[in-house]
Amino acid sequence: MKIVIIGSGNVAYALAEGFSRAGVPPVQVWSRSRGSAARVAGVCGCDFAGEGEPLCKADLYILAVSDKAVRNLSGRFDFGEGVVAHTAGSVEINAVQARHKAVFYPLQTISRGRTVDFRNVPIFIEASDARALSVVKEAAEMLSRRVMEVDSAQRTLLHVAAVFASNFTNHMYAAAEELAHDAGFDFEILKPLIAETAAKALDARSPREVQTGPAVRNDFETRSRHTELLSLKPYLQNLYINISKNIWEISKKT
Amino acid sequence: MKIVIIGSGNVAYALAEGFSRAGVPPVQVWSRSRGSAARVAGVCGCDFAGEGEPLCKADLYILAVSDKAVRNLSGRFDFGEGVVAHTAGSVEINAVQARHKAVFYPLQTISRGRTVDFRNVPIFIEASDARALSVVKEAAEMLSRRVMEVDSAQRTLLHVAAVFASNFTNHMYAAAEELAHDAGFDFEILKPLIAETAAKALDARSPREVQTGPAVRNDFETRSRHTELLSLKPYLQNLYINISKNIWEISKKT
Repeated sequence: MKIVIIGSGNVAYALAEGFSRAGVPPVQVWSRSRGSAARVAGVCGCDFAGEGEPLCKADLYILAVSDKAVRNLSGRFDFGEGVVAHTAGSVEINAVQARHKAVFYPLQTISRGRTVDFRNVPIFIEASDARALSVVKEAAEMLSRRVMEVDSAQRTLLHVAAVFASNFTNHMYAAAEELAHDAGFDFEILKPLIAETAAKALDARSPREVQTGPAVRNDFETRSRHTELLSLKPYLQNLYINISKNIWEISKKT
Repeated sequence: MKIVIIGSGNVAYALAEGFSRAGVPPVQVWSRSRGSAARVAGVCGCDFAGEGEPLCKADLYILAVSDKAVRNLSGRFDFGEGVVAHTAGSVEINAVQARHKAVFYPLQTISRGRTVDFRNVPIFIEASDARALSVVKEAAEMLSRRVMEVDSAQRTLLHVAAVFASNFTNHMYAAAEELAHDAGFDFEILKPLIAETAAKALDARSPREVQTGPAVRNDFETRSRHTELLSLKPYLQNLYINISKNIWEISKKT
């Protein structure tokens, strides 16, 4: 299977690295900036190209670019019979300008400087036709043991789920850091708690089984004391009230 | 140092286990229910007692009981010159009915069946007088390398920080689970993402450095699509809007 990666951000880099480790290094990395393409191609020692240069012939072109760039960038190339897949959680498959369209969405937070172990990462795929499906599926299965076909509605739901599980979780850490600072302490002192909270959920069948705290106990006294304390930080007070309410509502459903 | 643990919940159990591993097993576990006291005493092979039975003489009595029980339960005993410490994040030190009052607050989520490695757990202490301080400090330092003296205002802030870092984080996992279910998938598929999100923050100096997602990019299109999708779940839609707004506001401050 010949794979070309278009893009030079964190996802492009992680995929170039992942496919190389899986024994199928991309044949080319293309990016508007030739220098960035070269940097990504460096992880697999493959060919690279920039603005004005042509794409290699390939079975699969992975558009690892920003949501907004999917449509315009794909519209600039003639992919022929090649399958073209974007990697975005919430961009419709038809944004891809090509005969054989696909989506290749890894459910993971991907950052510079952190190696992704794709074998455990769920990859959600979608395709416009049978040929596109077979190619994108084969590629995904070379990376991961957890490849699943979904439709666009499912994928968008999964993307929102990922926003809660990752982006919003990180914001809870940031809110906690702010309060720890107010008490005169660094983020450092919260780390054992963050580690154990994640470990507990990872060992559970459902996070609802391991929910603790004043909200799930419906401990009105503690909640009022905390709400009062947050009166000078309305943005956190508001979250405190709403999340506490949700925790209590959800707990009653079990 | 002679320690008596009063209570038989998760915190009592973890402390009995922790002090035993540190080489200073409690001399007694007391609980209203004699059977529960026996269960906790089982981890260290120490003495136990129940309703109607007296407390042993000790240097430190740790009240590992619910917030509401601190005042009433401590009022029932004559601790003499013994120091009496409660373990709650948001209960005032004066709720302890004893001559030498203290607080012994470990910043960790403690659950049945999970061993706590107290050496890394920050323990925040507070005391009514020099004698209480010296005893509670000595005990805390036997368990942990990170013992810090705080006042009540700091401790309550730290407790709210812990609610965000742990209870609210777990609720983000629960919200994500609900959305994954709607898409037809189990909580299982979110685990690699949850693990990596925590690992990334644990490697960072601040969670603000590693914030990702549509909110911090101020990606209006994705946010609208997600908000629209959540219109049938107003409790999650509301959180989505508020947390996204906060993430964007905080990012501008850096």
